[in-house]
Amino acid sequence: MKLGFIGLGHMGAAMAANLVRAGHDVSVFNRTPGRAGSLIELGAREASSVAAASEAEAVITMLSDDDALSQVAFGEEGLIANLPRGAIHVSMSSVSVALSKLLAQAHAQAGQRYIAAPVFGRPAMAAAGKLFIVVAGDPATIEACQPLLGAMGQKAIPIGAEPAAANLVKLSGNFLTAAAIEAMGEAVALVGKAGIDRQTYIDLLTATVFNAAPYTTYGPLIAQGKFEPAAFAAPLAYKDVRLALAAAESLRVPMPLASLLHDRFLRLLVAGGEHLDWAALGGLATQDAGGAPR
Amino acid sequence: MKLGFIGLGHMGAAMAANLVRAGHDVSVFNRTPGRAGSLIELGAREASSVAAASEAEAVITMLSDDDALSQVAFGEEGLIANLPRGAIHVSMSSVSVALSKLLAQAHAQAGQRYIAAPVFGRPAMAAAGKLFIVVAGDPATIEACQPLLGAMGQKAIPIGAEPAAANLVKLSGNFLTAAAIEAMGEAVALVGKAGIDRQTYIDLLTATVFNAAPYTTYGPLIAQGKFEPAAFAAPLAYKDVRLALAAAESLRVPMPLASLLHDRFLRLLVAGGEHLDWAALGGLATQDAGGAPR
Amino acid sequence: MKLGFIGLGHMGAAMAANLVRAGHDVSVFNRTPGRAGSLIELGAREASSVAAASEAEAVITMLSDDDALSQVAFGEEGLIANLPRGAIHVSMSSVSVALSKLLAQAHAQAGQRYIAAPVFGRPAMAAAGKLFIVVAGDPATIEACQPLLGAMGQKAIPIGAEPAAANLVKLSGNFLTAAAIEAMGEAVALVGKAGIDRQTYIDLLTATVFNAAPYTTYGPLIAQGKFEPAAFAAPLAYKDVRLALAAAESLRVPMPLASLLHDRFLRLLVAGGEHLDWAALGGLATQDAGGAPR
Amino acid sequence: MKLGFIGLGHMGAAMAANLVRAGHDVSVFNRTPGRAGSLIELGAREASSVAAASEAEAVITMLSDDDALSQVAFGEEGLIANLPRGAIHVSMSSVSVALSKLLAQAHAQAGQRYIAAPVFGRPAMAAAGKLFIVVAGDPATIEACQPLLGAMGQKAIPIGAEPAAANLVKLSGNFLTAAAIEAMGEAVALVGKAGIDRQTYIDLLTATVFNAAPYTTYGPLIAQGKFEPAAFAAPLAYKDVRLALAAAESLRVPMPLASLLHDRFLRLLVAGGEHLDWAALGGLATQDAGGAPR
Repeated sequence: MKLGFIGLGHMGAAMAANLVRAGHDVSVFNRTPGRAGSLIELGAREASSVAAASEAEAVITMLSDDDALSQVAFGEEGLIANLPRGAIHVSMSSVSVALSKLLAQAHAQAGQRYIAAPVFGRPAMAAAGKLFIVVAGDPATIEACQPLLGAMGQKAIPIGAEPAAANLVKLSGNFLTAAAIEAMGEAVALVGKAGIDRQTYIDLLTATVFNAAPYTTYGPLIAQGKFEPAAFAAPLAYKDVRLALAAAESLRVPMPLASLLHDRFLRLLVAGGEHLDWAALGGLATQDAGGAPR
Repeated sequence: MKLGFIGLGHMGAAMAANLVRAGHDVSVFNRTPGRAGSLIELGAREASSVAAASEAEAVITMLSDDDALSQVAFGEEGLIANLPRGAIHVSMSSVSVALSKLLAQAHAQAGQRYIAAPVFGRPAMAAAGKLFIVVAGDPATIEACQPLLGAMGQKAIPIGAEPAAANLVKLSGNFLTAAAIEAMGEAVALVGKAGIDRQTYIDLLTATVFNAAPYTTYGPLIAQGKFEPAAFAAPLAYKDVRLALAAAESLRVPMPLASLLHDRFLRLLVAGGEHLDWAALGGLATQDAGGAPR
Repeated sequence: MKLGFIGLGHMGAAMAANLVRAGHDVSVFNRTPGRAGSLIELGAREASSVAAASEAEAVITMLSDDDALSQVAFGEEGLIANLPRGAIHVSMSSVSVALSKLLAQAHAQAGQRYIAAPVFGRPAMAAAGKLFIVVAGDPATIEACQPLLGAMGQKAIPIGAEPAAANLVKLSGNFLTAAAIEAMGEAVALVGKAGIDRQTYIDLLTATVFNAAPYTTYGPLIAQGKFEPAAFAAPLAYKDVRLALAAAESLRVPMPLASLLHDRFLRLLVAGGEHLDWAALGGLATQDAGGAPR
Repeated sequence: MKLGFIGLGHMGAAMAANLVRAGHDVSVFNRTPGRAGSLIELGAREASSVAAASEAEAVITMLSDDDALSQVAFGEEGLIANLPRGAIHVSMSSVSVALSKLLAQAHAQAGQRYIAAPVFGRPAMAAAGKLFIVVAGDPATIEACQPLLGAMGQKAIPIGAEPAAANLVKLSGNFLTAAAIEAMGEAVALVGKAGIDRQTYIDLLTATVFNAAPYTTYGPLIAQGKFEPAAFAAPLAYKDVRLALAAAESLRVPMPLASLLHDRFLRLLVAGGEHLDWAALGGLATQDAGGAPR
């Protein structure tokens, strides 16, 4: 397929590479220049603008937040103004439910198709084409995108016909992982101050009941206090918890654990966490117990 | 080995049966009579008292809480007064760090051996001999108990020479699971109120990133609001969170997420949760969002 | 002075009446008609529109929230488009810091003057001219408004030259009162379940250490579970806590107690609290302890 | 009256002095020697032991916690063993509900009378005889003690015939004040980071709606970050919140705000708060917002 791919961060670059490798004709664009090099070597073309990248059968966006995606999507030079009628926008960023609804509306008015397909997985999983993709929108459109989704992920799981549902599921998933990080952080602070070896403790947990990615990925980082480099930076995780709470507020769903995480992320950011991995949330309890935060 | 087994609840009866099947000579006792029937059919003998069950090379206790274990362990008719010198007490209950330290002291004074070996797993896992056992104490004593632990669990993982360490790890593990239950409860309330099918949502989570027991076991129960019968009753889970907080308080480790869980368990118990599974903690968020709690 | 007064709810009507009584020439307007009757009897004139009410030396607005004030302020028929150059907008509503900054900018561009002067006090205090007014903005403009503020309140306290500062102080004050309500709610639930008479308890507190309005006003309501009629409705209090948290988020100030209040207000609203006084926040703890909520 | 007074800390010494000044025959004792000097100058006698101080019509105890009071009350050399039949123990310390019930029982068995009369007020109020005293127990016994209570406090307010009720009310009162301190701490962090002068802000609050001791006493300390010297030390306040939560747990009353305060006090103590005034709880929010804690 003739594709546009906008957003070449750690995740986006790896995902675009897999599309190129799968034989698609991919035109890539990043707002900050200089990120396209290795993709061009692989066979991608570099688009000079969002508008240029939009001349495609399908355009994938993978951007850091609502602001970035809004800037790309709206305006005369934007995706909506330049995507051909009938073409598809596959929105893979973690963005708000509100923005996803806005995009659905705007694309419908422009006679374009739109699905939301946010992902679970860190950059290494993106590089390996092993992402989990949550996808929502018109079933026929999702069907048409299967070759793309299959090139980027190990599984693409549909969650309904309303694109924003996929965004909400993604936000809720990051909330669940942040909750696991906070819980491990408190548990590690407790057993560590009792004199139990932190790494042995995490090994025990992950070898038995807690043998899933949130624990196997972040447990060792918390045990070791190793929060750099950031594979998923704390400000992005904070954003996702904030967006989950925003959705919860508009639906009137009290989420006290999400609020607790929100406040602790905020504290982490103030205390220098801007450049740390979100696993650093799990360092606060050790710090509060009198240990070195990292 | 000649064994005593005290405590024939859902868990204990299944564990004792596996010891009988493994060829051990097991004398069983339960404070409330009438629980030994099927074990006797399997080949166990029924002891008439704690003292009688204590005449063994090793005695396993599997009781509901500190009070129950204290009543069994202390006093003239108790385990400590009647266990032979050099014999082993394998304490598998979820009890407090403080009681475990007290037992270690009392057994040492009586010339007996003592290890703590609490378990992770629900009754079905106990029946299948698939429990995860966390074990701490003198290494030679643990070694001597391997045939017993191997008959009851799929894995016995050592966590140090201080028996109370195993108890703390067990408590912390139940705290982690309770945190996952609360997090799922809030997430399910959120996506459910947004119109997403709750079961499909849990299926998606557990088929991807959250493929570990706390999610696969409790997620469906939360999605369905199915909290009876209780495989692990809410009051026992509340007790474990309380004991984790008691240990945290004595070590001066602030655990805000554990406090949140404590208060929500308390609320659940007041609202009729005494007979529900601890998964019911995950029903509060749906209730607060205006849905049926179950 | 020739005045416009926009917003004739419980508070606004009482405040406008005091301005009329003080001899000002007051033109009143309410978006929902039929509220001006008694004011006209007192000597006020009824304006037919916001634009008509804006033909004044100073216009006072007393509206329920950001939306209401925005609709009055902006647009061709709005206050900013119709207030004479040099005239003053005295904004007395409890609104967001963000909106207050927007208004400051818009009035400056239109050559108008703008101060924020939100109030503390319930309708009875408004009727008695006993409000406490927090005022911020250009000192000369504040000086010019003293006759107005003096007619409505017992005290007008300046908090700086930036109007939004007064709005933030007002929001923070309602947060402080909500915190006192929640604290009393938990304390009353505790002593009540211990068998102590709830009213006697509140009398004791307010006769000794806690002899200030948040306790003397709301304590008896909580002790009696009397949450209707609403003098200040729960949704408005929820709004103020939400706006305080929004300001905190944009300034990066973690406020865990404010988050706790936010979630409990949300729960209260879902459970039928829309029409209750915000004192009903103090009924949740009694409900969670197994008592009648009210 | 012939009195014993046990416990000569900041509070006790000032209270004992007022009893001497009121003409009573006071025998004083402190476990750490060297505190009686100025009282002897006033006319008190120094007792050589608890037993010696117990030879009185009434003995007042004013000790720091459950442990201290238990050591004084129980044992062969203790108050209960040495107080004459019919004599009165006036327990004024802030202690647990559980200990108060134990004392009631023990004094009844010994044929002695017992009332609980904990106080609100800081050392300066104690010195001025201006304490608020909450008193519970047999009405005739309370009546007999009025001359003593009147010498120490401006008001003695009865709260029932069960002595432990007074202890619970005292604990709940300190919880309420701690809640006000935390709330002010968050509010001051918020307005301070917005550029508003912190002292002016507190002046505004306390001159208007929040004109009660918890705000007028602690607000300025929080605004200035002045937490030394400690008039009421953080560990004592932590203890009171902990005891309120212990009572709440045994009564099954969820108190989420009390839990929040508990965790923040714990964090404060770990971070060096042992010697600070409990107002330092109100410094955490400023610290979390990136400001100097004090």
